[in-house]
Amino acid sequence: MSEKKYVYHFAEGNANMKMLLGGKGANLAEMSRIGLPVPPGFIVTTEACRDFIAQGQQFPAGLKEEVQTAMKQLEGELGRCFGGENDLLLISVRSGSPVSMPGMMDTVLNLGLNDRTVEALAKDSGNETFALDCYRRLLTMFGDVVLGVEHDKFAAIYDSEKHRVGVSFDYQLTPDSLRRIINDYKDLIAAAGAHPFPQDPMEQLFMSIFAVFNSWQNDRAVIYRKLHKIPDDYGTAVNIQAMVFGNMGEGSGSGVAFSRNPSTGEKALYGEYLLNAQGEDIVAGIRTPKPISLLKEELPEIYDQFAEKSDFIEKHYKNMQDMEFTVERGKLWILQTRNGKRTAAASVRIAVNMAEEGLISKEEAIMSVDAGQLSQLLHRQIDPQAEVQVIAAGLPASPGAASGTVVFDSEQAHQMTKNGAKVILVRTETTPDDIQGIVAAQGILTSRGGMTSHAAVVARGMGKCCVCGCEAIKIDYINKVFTVDDLTIKEGDTISIDGTQGHVVLGEVPMVEPELSPEFMQLSKWADDIRTLSVRANADNPADAARAIELGATGIGLCRTEHMFMDPQRLPLVQAMILAENAAQRQEALGKLLPVQQQDFYDIFKTMDGLPVTMRLLDPPLHEFLPDATKLAVEICTMEFTKAPQSEIDEKKRLLDIIETLAERNPMLGNRGCRLGITFPEIYEMQAEAIFHAAAQLCKEGCCPVPEIEIPLISDNRELTYIRKLILRAKDKVEKETGIVVECKIGVMIELPRAALIADELAVQADFFCFGTNDLTQATLGFSRDDAEGTFMPAYLEKKIFIESPFIVIDRTGVGKLMQMAVDNGRSVKPDLLIGICGEQGGEPGSIEFCHLTGLDYVSCSPFRIPIARIAAAQAKIKHEHDIEGDFNTH
Amino acid sequence: MSEKKYVYHFAEGNANMKMLLGGKGANLAEMSRIGLPVPPGFIVTTEACRDFIAQGQQFPAGLKEEVQTAMKQLEGELGRCFGGENDLLLISVRSGSPVSMPGMMDTVLNLGLNDRTVEALAKDSGNETFALDCYRRLLTMFGDVVLGVEHDKFAAIYDSEKHRVGVSFDYQLTPDSLRRIINDYKDLIAAAGAHPFPQDPMEQLFMSIFAVFNSWQNDRAVIYRKLHKIPDDYGTAVNIQAMVFGNMGEGSGSGVAFSRNPSTGEKALYGEYLLNAQGEDIVAGIRTPKPISLLKEELPEIYDQFAEKSDFIEKHYKNMQDMEFTVERGKLWILQTRNGKRTAAASVRIAVNMAEEGLISKEEAIMSVDAGQLSQLLHRQIDPQAEVQVIAAGLPASPGAASGTVVFDSEQAHQMTKNGAKVILVRTETTPDDIQGIVAAQGILTSRGGMTSHAAVVARGMGKCCVCGCEAIKIDYINKVFTVDDLTIKEGDTISIDGTQGHVVLGEVPMVEPELSPEFMQLSKWADDIRTLSVRANADNPADAARAIELGATGIGLCRTEHMFMDPQRLPLVQAMILAENAAQRQEALGKLLPVQQQDFYDIFKTMDGLPVTMRLLDPPLHEFLPDATKLAVEICTMEFTKAPQSEIDEKKRLLDIIETLAERNPMLGNRGCRLGITFPEIYEMQAEAIFHAAAQLCKEGCCPVPEIEIPLISDNRELTYIRKLILRAKDKVEKETGIVVECKIGVMIELPRAALIADELAVQADFFCFGTNDLTQATLGFSRDDAEGTFMPAYLEKKIFIESPFIVIDRTGVGKLMQMAVDNGRSVKPDLLIGICGEQGGEPGSIEFCHLTGLDYVSCSPFRIPIARIAAAQAKIKHEHDIEGDFNTH
Repeated sequence: MSEKKYVYHFAEGNANMKMLLGGKGANLAEMSRIGLPVPPGFIVTTEACRDFIAQGQQFPAGLKEEVQTAMKQLEGELGRCFGGENDLLLISVRSGSPVSMPGMMDTVLNLGLNDRTVEALAKDSGNETFALDCYRRLLTMFGDVVLGVEHDKFAAIYDSEKHRVGVSFDYQLTPDSLRRIINDYKDLIAAAGAHPFPQDPMEQLFMSIFAVFNSWQNDRAVIYRKLHKIPDDYGTAVNIQAMVFGNMGEGSGSGVAFSRNPSTGEKALYGEYLLNAQGEDIVAGIRTPKPISLLKEELPEIYDQFAEKSDFIEKHYKNMQDMEFTVERGKLWILQTRNGKRTAAASVRIAVNMAEEGLISKEEAIMSVDAGQLSQLLHRQIDPQAEVQVIAAGLPASPGAASGTVVFDSEQAHQMTKNGAKVILVRTETTPDDIQGIVAAQGILTSRGGMTSHAAVVARGMGKCCVCGCEAIKIDYINKVFTVDDLTIKEGDTISIDGTQGHVVLGEVPMVEPELSPEFMQLSKWADDIRTLSVRANADNPADAARAIELGATGIGLCRTEHMFMDPQRLPLVQAMILAENAAQRQEALGKLLPVQQQDFYDIFKTMDGLPVTMRLLDPPLHEFLPDATKLAVEICTMEFTKAPQSEIDEKKRLLDIIETLAERNPMLGNRGCRLGITFPEIYEMQAEAIFHAAAQLCKEGCCPVPEIEIPLISDNRELTYIRKLILRAKDKVEKETGIVVECKIGVMIELPRAALIADELAVQADFFCFGTNDLTQATLGFSRDDAEGTFMPAYLEKKIFIESPFIVIDRTGVGKLMQMAVDNGRSVKPDLLIGICGEQGGEPGSIEFCHLTGLDYVSCSPFRIPIARIAAAQAKIKHEHDIEGDFNTH
Repeated sequence: MSEKKYVYHFAEGNANMKMLLGGKGANLAEMSRIGLPVPPGFIVTTEACRDFIAQGQQFPAGLKEEVQTAMKQLEGELGRCFGGENDLLLISVRSGSPVSMPGMMDTVLNLGLNDRTVEALAKDSGNETFALDCYRRLLTMFGDVVLGVEHDKFAAIYDSEKHRVGVSFDYQLTPDSLRRIINDYKDLIAAAGAHPFPQDPMEQLFMSIFAVFNSWQNDRAVIYRKLHKIPDDYGTAVNIQAMVFGNMGEGSGSGVAFSRNPSTGEKALYGEYLLNAQGEDIVAGIRTPKPISLLKEELPEIYDQFAEKSDFIEKHYKNMQDMEFTVERGKLWILQTRNGKRTAAASVRIAVNMAEEGLISKEEAIMSVDAGQLSQLLHRQIDPQAEVQVIAAGLPASPGAASGTVVFDSEQAHQMTKNGAKVILVRTETTPDDIQGIVAAQGILTSRGGMTSHAAVVARGMGKCCVCGCEAIKIDYINKVFTVDDLTIKEGDTISIDGTQGHVVLGEVPMVEPELSPEFMQLSKWADDIRTLSVRANADNPADAARAIELGATGIGLCRTEHMFMDPQRLPLVQAMILAENAAQRQEALGKLLPVQQQDFYDIFKTMDGLPVTMRLLDPPLHEFLPDATKLAVEICTMEFTKAPQSEIDEKKRLLDIIETLAERNPMLGNRGCRLGITFPEIYEMQAEAIFHAAAQLCKEGCCPVPEIEIPLISDNRELTYIRKLILRAKDKVEKETGIVVECKIGVMIELPRAALIADELAVQADFFCFGTNDLTQATLGFSRDDAEGTFMPAYLEKKIFIESPFIVIDRTGVGKLMQMAVDNGRSVKPDLLIGICGEQGGEPGSIEFCHLTGLDYVSCSPFRIPIARIAAAQAKIKHEHDIEGDFNTH
C-alpha cells in the first residue's frame, strides 16, 4: 500500500498548491479555504496522474479507496446520496493541470444520473424535461470523453429528432423526444464501443477519472504542451465537485455579477440574475435577466449574503471580481470568481479607489491598469453602445474618431471646411501637398502607407484621427468614389473613422468625448513619484507644446523643424530655396526663412519656459517639399496637347528637371538628415542661427529657454565634427550680435546601426543621444516604414514571422541589442550621458519597459500618449525594482 | 664640452639609423656603406637639432668643431677645397627628419660660391653662364631659406630681366644679364634682411644648418606634424654633401635609369642620359636625351660600371631601382636610388623573374605587386601612349575601354548592332528595360547612379566597360544629344569610354588588348599555394562560369537568379507572372518559367561540374521587372489626347494600376529578398524545384552538381524556418519524382544588421553564411547604393567625411564590426560554419585582407577580379602570418 495522499478535500488545499492540485483545483481550494460557499468537492492530485502513467495506465494502489472515502464525506457534508433516489447527489469531473491549457480540459457533468436516478431528479426539480436533458447531456459527454464515441454522432441524433418533430429550438423538445434521444444515444454507445454506458454511479466516476488521466497523453495535449513548452511530466489533477442547480423552484436562481461596475468603476455590485434558472439560461436569451439590484427585493437575504461575500472576495483577491453564483432552494453557492475584465476608465477608477480604500498599495494600483488600453480615455471614441456598420479595416494610425463627408482632394477639403462642412479626407496616400487638407479635415483615411507614413505621422502630430493602409478601399479619383467590395461611397457621402481601432464605418455615429478623470490624474501623480524615466513630448508647435505640458511632459524630446517648413504659407519659401539656381538665390530664400523659423522657435521656447526643448535640424530629403514627378509629367503632356503658352511649359519642365535631379530611388537612405547639413550647410546654419537668436531674445525678456540641438542621421564621427563646428559658429555669431550667451547641448540621433556601433566615438563630442527607433528599426531590419505595412507586413503577421510590428513594439532582439550597445559604449566614455528615445515606440508600454531596463533617461512621444507613458514608466520601475536593486548591490 | 657625437660621416651610418640621421641621411649612409659611389658627405644628427632647440636656438657645444673637422675630411677625400680657387668644393645642405615630410624639406644648393669662387667655377667648367646661374640659384635659395626673403621677389627680378632683354627661356640669358640679376639679388637681400649674403663659405654653411634646425619649428612644419601625428620632439637632421656636376665637358654627363624596364619588366637597363649636362637638363626638353644603351658606345667604361652597380643595387634592395647618376670628368657618381614605379605588367614580370633569379622569395614576389593595380592587365585599355581628349569623368564602374557611336535608346542600340555598328549606350541611368541595349553596346555611359547602380552591376557581370554617374554630361533625349559644358555630342558621333579610369574621351582611340602573361599565371599559382581564403566568382550564366574557372575560381559564390529573369526573352513570362490576377494565372506563368530556369541551372551546374554553385533565390522587388510609371502615365495621357482605342487605354491603365500597387517608396527596404518568398511562396518553390530537377538530371548523366541554395535578405530566424521548409518540400518532391537524392546546403545572406545581430540563432539552421556587403553597408550606414554616389557622396569625399566609398572598400569600423559579430556568434554555435562574402568589396584587396582577418572561408567576386583576389588573398595571409600563428600558439 502506498503512503501517498492522492485525494485532497477542497478545505485541505490552497492557492499555492497548483503543482499538486492543478490550477483549477488550487483555486477551488482557496475559495473554500477562505470560507466561500463553494459547492463542496475534492481533488485527485497530479501525482496520482503521474503514478497512473508510470504504472502503465493503472490506478495506483490506494487511490480508489481514497476516492470512495472522499465521496462518503461529500455525501455526509451535503446530506445527499450519490446514486440515491432522494436527495440525489450529482457531481462534475473536470481535469486541471498546473498550467492552464485552454481547450484541452476534459469535463463530464451530471455524473450520478442513470435510468433510475433521472426520475428522482425530475421529481426533486419538478421539471421532467430538465432532468431528462441532464441525463442526455451526461450521455453525450461521457460517451465522448470517456468512451471515445464521436461527438458529431450524438449531435446528428439530436438534430434528426428535432427535425422529425419539427422544432427549431432545444427548449421546444418534449420529454418524449428526449427519451427517444436518450435511447438512441445508448444504442449509439453500445454499437460504437466495447463498453456500454455504466448505470453504476461509482463506475461512472472511476471511468471518468481514468479518462481524464489518459487525456494527458492524447495527441492534442501532447502537441499543445510542445507548442507552449509545458513539461510532459506535470500531469493533470481531477476535480470532483457536487453539482448545484438554480432551477429548483422560485427559491432558486442563478446570476453573474461584478464586484464593481466594469464600465465606470463605480463601487457597487453590477450584474444580472434569473430566478428558477441555471447559469446558462442567463446568456441563452430566452428569458431576459434582471439587474442584480432587483435581487434585493426578490431575495433580500440572499442579496445581502452575496453582497457581503462580494466585498470579502474583493478584499481577499485585491481586485475587482467577476463572480458566478447559484441559489439552490434558498442556499447561496459561489461557483466561480476571477478578476473581472473592465474598460480603461473603470480600471483607473477601481485602481485609485482601491488604493484609497487601503485595499491595495499605490504600486499595486498602478500595476493593475493596462497602460496600452489607456489611450481609449484620451481620445474621442465611437460610442461603444452604438451599433455601427464597419465596412473596412485599416491600420489604427492615429487614435480618436470622427464623422464627416467624404472628400478626395485637399484643396476641396480646405474650401468645404471654410464653408462650415466637416470632412474626412480620403487619399491613396498623402504628401506635403496635402497639408491644407489634413489641417481642414476631421480625420484622414488612406488606402496605402503604414503606421509611419506621412498621413499617420502628421495626423498623430496634430492629434487628429487617422486610418492608414486601408487596402480594402479602392479609390477612383476621376469619378470621385471609393469602393469596398460591392459598396460604393461617393464624394459627399458621410462616413466615420475610428483611428483607435482602424475602422471605417458607414454614416454618422454617436461619439463619446474623452475626459481625464480625477482618478486618472491621481494615478498619474502616483506614477510620477515612482518612475525614474522622464517623459517628454514630440511636439512641433506651441499648441502641441502647451498640450504636452498639460498632459505632464517635462520637456520636448523631439521638435521636427521640417514640420514648420511644411506649413502651407512657408512651403513657397522652402521651394524657392530648393529651386535656387545658385548660392546667392539660395541665401536670399534662406534669409526669408530665418525670421519665420526664429519666430517658431521663440514661441515654442516661450511655451516650454525652463524646460528642455530638443530641436532636430532639418531631416527629410528636399524633394519631399516638391510636387510629385508623375503628376507633373502628365500635366506637361496635357499642356502640350492643349497648346498652353510655351513659356509656361518650359517653366514646368525646368521644375520637373529639378525634381528628377533631386529624386532618389530610396529617399530614406538618401540625401537627408545631417547629409543635408553637409551638402547644403547654409540650411543648417540658418536653423542654428534662428535657434540662438530666438533663445537670446527670450533671455533678454527674462525667460529661461533650454534649447538642445539634435543632429539627425549621424553615421560617422566626422559628420558630427563638421556639423558641431557649424552650429558653434552660428552660436558665436549670435553671441557677438546680441551679447547674450545661450547654453545649448548638441547631441545626436542614434538612428542608424553604425551610429550605435560607434557610440563610444560619438559620445566624446555629443552632449546627448536620442534613439530614433523608427529609422533604427527600418535600417536594422531593412524594413521600409513607408512600404512594409502595405506590402509584406500583413503576410509576416499572418504567418507569424513577426508577432507584432517592430515599428510599434521595439524589437528587443535586434534593435534592442544595438540600443544596449550604444548605451553601454556611450556611457563607457561619458558615464552621465543623457540618453532618450523619440521614436513612435516611445509611447508604447512594452517598449517603455525596455527603455527603463536599458537605462535610458527619458522617453519622448506624441502628446496624447504622455499619460500612457507616465503610467508605463512607473510600471516598468515597479516590475523591475528588485532587479535594479540587485544590480546596485553588486556595484 | 659635450661627450655627444653630433656629426656622422656617411660611411659611419646605415639604413637603420633613421631616428638619429633622418630618413635621407640614413639612405645616403646606406648607399655609401654598401660601396656605391655616392658623392661624399656627412650628417648632423637629429639629436643636435633637439639640443639646439632645448638650448634656445643655440648650436650645442662642440657641434661647430665637429662640422669643421668633417669639412676638412671631405676636402681631403675629394682633393678639393671649400672656398678655394682651384678644385673648388661646393656642397648642398638638406634637412631630413626621421619621418618623410614632403614639401617641408628645406634645401640649399651650391654652398661655397661667392663673388670670387664663382669665377673659379666658370673656369673649371668652361661655362661662365652655368657658373653664374649656380651662384644666382644659391642667392635665391639662401635668401629664401636662410635669410627669409620672399621667394616671389627673386622671381620678379628674374622675370623683369628676361622681359628687359626680350627673351622667353631661361637658357637664353647671357652672362651679363645673370650678373645684373646677381647684383639685384644682393641688393634685394641687403634691403630686406638685417644680414647681407655672407661671402665666407663656412658662414654660409653654419647659417644654413641654423636655418634648417629652425625650420623644424615653423608653422608649416608644426601643422604638418599635427595632421600626420608625428611627434614634435623628433627633430630634423642636416645632410651636407659634396656637389658633383655633369656639365664639366664631354667626359661628363647625367642620366636616369631603371634597373629593369618599368613598362614591360624586361631585365635590361632602361633610361636615358645626356653628355655634358646636369640632371635637370634631361627633363628640361631643350636637348633630347639618348637611350641608355647608347652610353655603351659613348662611354663604354662608365656604362659597364653603371650596369654593374645597377645589378648590385637591385640585389641589395631586392627591388627594381630608379637611379640618378652623374659623370663628372670620367668619374661615375650615383646620386640617388629608390624603388622604381612600374606598370602592373612590369610589376608582375619583375616579381616573378626576381623570385626565379633567387633574389627574393615567392612571398616577397607576391607582396611586391599592387593587387589593386592588376585589373589593368585584365581589360582592354586605352593605349597609354595615345594622346586623348578627356571630356568628362565619372565613376570607374566596370573596367575596360571601348569606342563606338553614341546611342541614347536601347532598342536602337540593339537594331544598330544587328547591322554591324559598334555603339556606346548613353543613358541617365539604366533599368531592366535596357538589358537588350546593354547586351548590344560596347560600353555603357550613365549620367547618374553609383558603383552599384543597375548599369554598373549588369556591366560588371557581363565584363563590359561602364562609366557611371558622370554628372558632367547633360542628356537631352528629345534632341538626341548630350552636352558637356560647351561641347555637344550628337547621336552617331563617336566617343570612347574608359571604365578603369572613369573617363569619357572624344572620338575613337587606339586600344591595348589585355593578356595574361605566363608570369601572371606563375604568380597566381604561387599565391594559390599560400592563401587560405578560397576565391569564388559571382556568375549568372555558363559563359561567366567558364571564364571564372579559367581565371582560377573554385566555385560560384553568387549566382543571381534574377539576371536570368531579366533576359529579354524571359521578361514577358516574368511580367505575366507578376501581372497575374489570381493564383491560377500565376501558377500558369510559373509553369512556363520552370523549364527555362531549370535549363539555366543545368547549364551552370554542368560548367561547374564538381564545384559548388551558390544560387541565390529571387532578390529584387517585382516592380523592377515592370515599365516605369511616369513614362507609362505620360503614354496614357498621350493616347487619350490622340484618341487611341479605349480598350488599349484601359489595358495600359490596368498595367499602371498594378505598377502603382507594387511601387514602393524605398524599394531597397521593401518587398524583396526572402520577403518575396513569404508573400509569393510559389516563386521560390518554382526556383527550388528547378534547381533540384537540374541537379538530378546531371546526376543521372554522371556529373557531380554541387548546388547551394542561398536565401537573401534574412532578418529573422522564422523567415529562415519558413523558407527552409519550402525548399525541403521541393527537394522531397523532386526526389520522389526522379528517385535521385541531391545533397544541397541551404544558407543565408547576411546583408541586414539584424541578421548579423542574431547570427547565433541563424547558425542553428543555416549551412552557410554569405555576407552581402553591398546591402549590409547600405543598411548599416543608411546609404542608398543607388543614390549616395549621385547625391551626397561627392561632398562626403570632398569634405573628407569619408576617405573612400564604403561601397568600394569595406567600412571596417561599422560594417566590419557587424561582420565580426556574425562570424563569432555563428561559429560559437557551429564552429565549422562555412562563411563567405559576395559583395562588390569581395574583389577589393583591402577588403579581402579584412575578410582574411575576420576568418572567412571564401571571397566571391566578378570573374574579372578573380586574379586580383587570388593575389590579394595571398598577400593578406603573408602579411598576417605572424599574427595568425601567434593566435594559434595561445590556443
